[in-house]
Amino acid sequence: MQQWDQLWIDVNIATMDPQRTNSYGAIENGAIAVKDGKIAWVGERINLPCFDALSTPIYKGHDHWITPGLIDAHTHLVFAGNRANEFEQRLNGASYEDIARQGGGIISTVKACRHADEAELFELGRQRLNALAREGVTTVEIKSGYGLNLDTELKLLRVARELGKHHHIDVQTTFLGAHAIPPEFNTILDGANQYVEHVVNDMLPAIIDAELADAVDVFCENIAFDLKQTEQVLIAAKLAGLNIKLHAEQLSNLGGSKMAAKLGAKSVDHIEYIDEAGVKALSENDTCAVLLPGAFYFLRETQTPPIDLLRKHNVPMVVASDFNPGSSPICSTLLMLNLACTLFRLTPEEALKGMTFNAAKALGIEHSVGSIEIGKQADFCLWGIKTPAELAYGYGVNPCQQVVKSGQIIAMGK
Amino acid sequence: MQQWDQLWIDVNIATMDPQRTNSYGAIENGAIAVKDGKIAWVGERINLPCFDALSTPIYKGHDHWITPGLIDAHTHLVFAGNRANEFEQRLNGASYEDIARQGGGIISTVKACRHADEAELFELGRQRLNALAREGVTTVEIKSGYGLNLDTELKLLRVARELGKHHHIDVQTTFLGAHAIPPEFNTILDGANQYVEHVVNDMLPAIIDAELADAVDVFCENIAFDLKQTEQVLIAAKLAGLNIKLHAEQLSNLGGSKMAAKLGAKSVDHIEYIDEAGVKALSENDTCAVLLPGAFYFLRETQTPPIDLLRKHNVPMVVASDFNPGSSPICSTLLMLNLACTLFRLTPEEALKGMTFNAAKALGIEHSVGSIEIGKQADFCLWGIKTPAELAYGYGVNPCQQVVKSGQIIAMGK
Ligand SMILES: [Zn+2]
Ligand SMILES: [Zn+2]
Repeated sequence: MQQWDQLWIDVNIATMDPQRTNSYGAIENGAIAVKDGKIAWVGERINLPCFDALSTPIYKGHDHWITPGLIDAHTHLVFAGNRANEFEQRLNGASYEDIARQGGGIISTVKACRHADEAELFELGRQRLNALAREGVTTVEIKSGYGLNLDTELKLLRVARELGKHHHIDVQTTFLGAHAIPPEFNTILDGANQYVEHVVNDMLPAIIDAELADAVDVFCENIAFDLKQTEQVLIAAKLAGLNIKLHAEQLSNLGGSKMAAKLGAKSVDHIEYIDEAGVKALSENDTCAVLLPGAFYFLRETQTPPIDLLRKHNVPMVVASDFNPGSSPICSTLLMLNLACTLFRLTPEEALKGMTFNAAKALGIEHSVGSIEIGKQADFCLWGIKTPAELAYGYGVNPCQQVVKSGQIIAMGK
Repeated sequence: MQQWDQLWIDVNIATMDPQRTNSYGAIENGAIAVKDGKIAWVGERINLPCFDALSTPIYKGHDHWITPGLIDAHTHLVFAGNRANEFEQRLNGASYEDIARQGGGIISTVKACRHADEAELFELGRQRLNALAREGVTTVEIKSGYGLNLDTELKLLRVARELGKHHHIDVQTTFLGAHAIPPEFNTILDGANQYVEHVVNDMLPAIIDAELADAVDVFCENIAFDLKQTEQVLIAAKLAGLNIKLHAEQLSNLGGSKMAAKLGAKSVDHIEYIDEAGVKALSENDTCAVLLPGAFYFLRETQTPPIDLLRKHNVPMVVASDFNPGSSPICSTLLMLNLACTLFRLTPEEALKGMTFNAAKALGIEHSVGSIEIGKQADFCLWGIKTPAELAYGYGVNPCQQVVKSGQIIAMGK
């Protein structure tokens, strides 16, 4: 007779398990059993094995839907300050040059992060994780990249790690030292290359030493780092045994996606301008395409990522918030599902897969989270909805009723 | 010596009072006194008159910002069912015709509303008001229009009125019987005219009799009611002493705005396709332009309302959610501020004015709400922000900390 810690019944389950080939990997009138923080059993209720009914707490879902806990696979959510003033100035007619001259743009966030102490950054991060938790998020990736010097990059990554320890949301950290050329290097000869040398030779080893990063990312773009510089950072990270990923093809096609895929990148992110050769490279190397509709919306871009090509070549598509103060100041996963469907024409199922199974894959943690399968972590949400498509269709009345994280039940307020 | 019920200090105040000509009508280091549910005093703290400090409860705002309570001046928030299935079908390639053939579109919502009982509609409405309340809304307009027969229109308006009585949010009701041609009239000869006769001669008198509507609205568009039919309804409403308003120029320019403005309409709503003659008519008749960026976004429209013309002719601009299951399933006011700035290029100040002072004007209640002025209702919010532009700039971490509604203090959870 099975001994379980909890059993969920009267639920429909969008398992997102790709071995179940129906839509959403759905199980209607299903059941989920949890034991030791893991999923011990999942299936149709009529197939429930014999279990110790007297000592097992039973939770009823009122015929609502359970999905895996949501995974936001691309955020920059540890930062100080905001850019509301720039936003307002720009809408009042100021040019990007005006704003840059006043020290605006990414540099204003870098300054704020360099000055902020860890307690302040932690508290800001905690509030943001709470907002994501309210919408069913159980795992989030957090990048550094607003320090651009060793001390501050270490500080941002330490805060991200601490958040993961103190919040029920799991945190995956990514070192994005090569996010922009810092002011100290911007004015010197060959500054970009000099800074990349610094990232590879000084920052990366220190961060590896402190075990603060699960992955390394680079912003590969005309306005940031070129293909050669990007490759240099990614190879150093790969040699150190870290996952690699890339901000690529957001504003132009430099070929970063192809290069990163060939190096075994877990994901390339943005990719509005990727071409078919790039998409094929993703497919051949099992690299995920992380779509970031928040930045597309906020920057009022017009070129959408090539969804049909990604479908044609079976590239795993991910949807993430890219939450950051400059190009996507939107800390909401459910809204990203709606943006992905509305702006990129993903189906609700593709969008949800992009925030569960494929998001786990983009972080290299698909063995333990991202779908409701026996043996995976018991990370799932109960939503007050009648069809999983409701998660992507509307926004505002939060349907998240309960979150289970590693078997721990967390009630969500309305 | 002044006797007050409460005093707010350590706050900056975006009064939105147009007599204060600086940005946001702002008062830095201000104070607000409340007495009998009304604003008894507002100004700079150093100018506070002598008051009974021993018996006045004092609330401190930690140098954050207070704004008037938000007013959502255009919603359809009492409805049953949703259209997530259609949303999903369309993204899977179904045409609008396919969906209409299956009974989709507005008719599916009409059917759901006709079948729903008042308790169900009330509970759905209550959850939606809670979502708006969380974001600082203190007044909301609710339209009928998903009944399209007398019984159901009465039912929807009764529910809206009941919501206003039982929720701290004030509700203004609008009869929108002429929202679409109901199926019963769609198949008969001259059905649209026949239905308009029914609206004017049967429905409107019954609704007036029951005192269920504060205003009357019509959907004036090629796919709904033409100019003559629209005028017939608006004139009947005006003769009965109700406020009038119009869904106009959303998909084409029929001239509804001009006609409605000349009849003294409080607002015309959507108006993507209005021309300069229409805008001038709004200006001459002090009719508000209600901008609905949620529908623009969700329908992926490309023609924006002519913001520069509206500015040139000093037309009061309003920003509202248009929350409804078909074209704007987004129940969030703060997100609308961001959409209005991002998509329509409103400034954050224009957007906030459009959800406070001008929104009150569009509902004809500007004498009592919409700005922080002595004598108006004590409806205001305390936000954890350092500049009012933050309300429009970002989204996700809810900055609403306290709401004061008619002097009653309501704490907002995170
Ligand atoms: Zn990013
Ligand atoms: Zn409407």
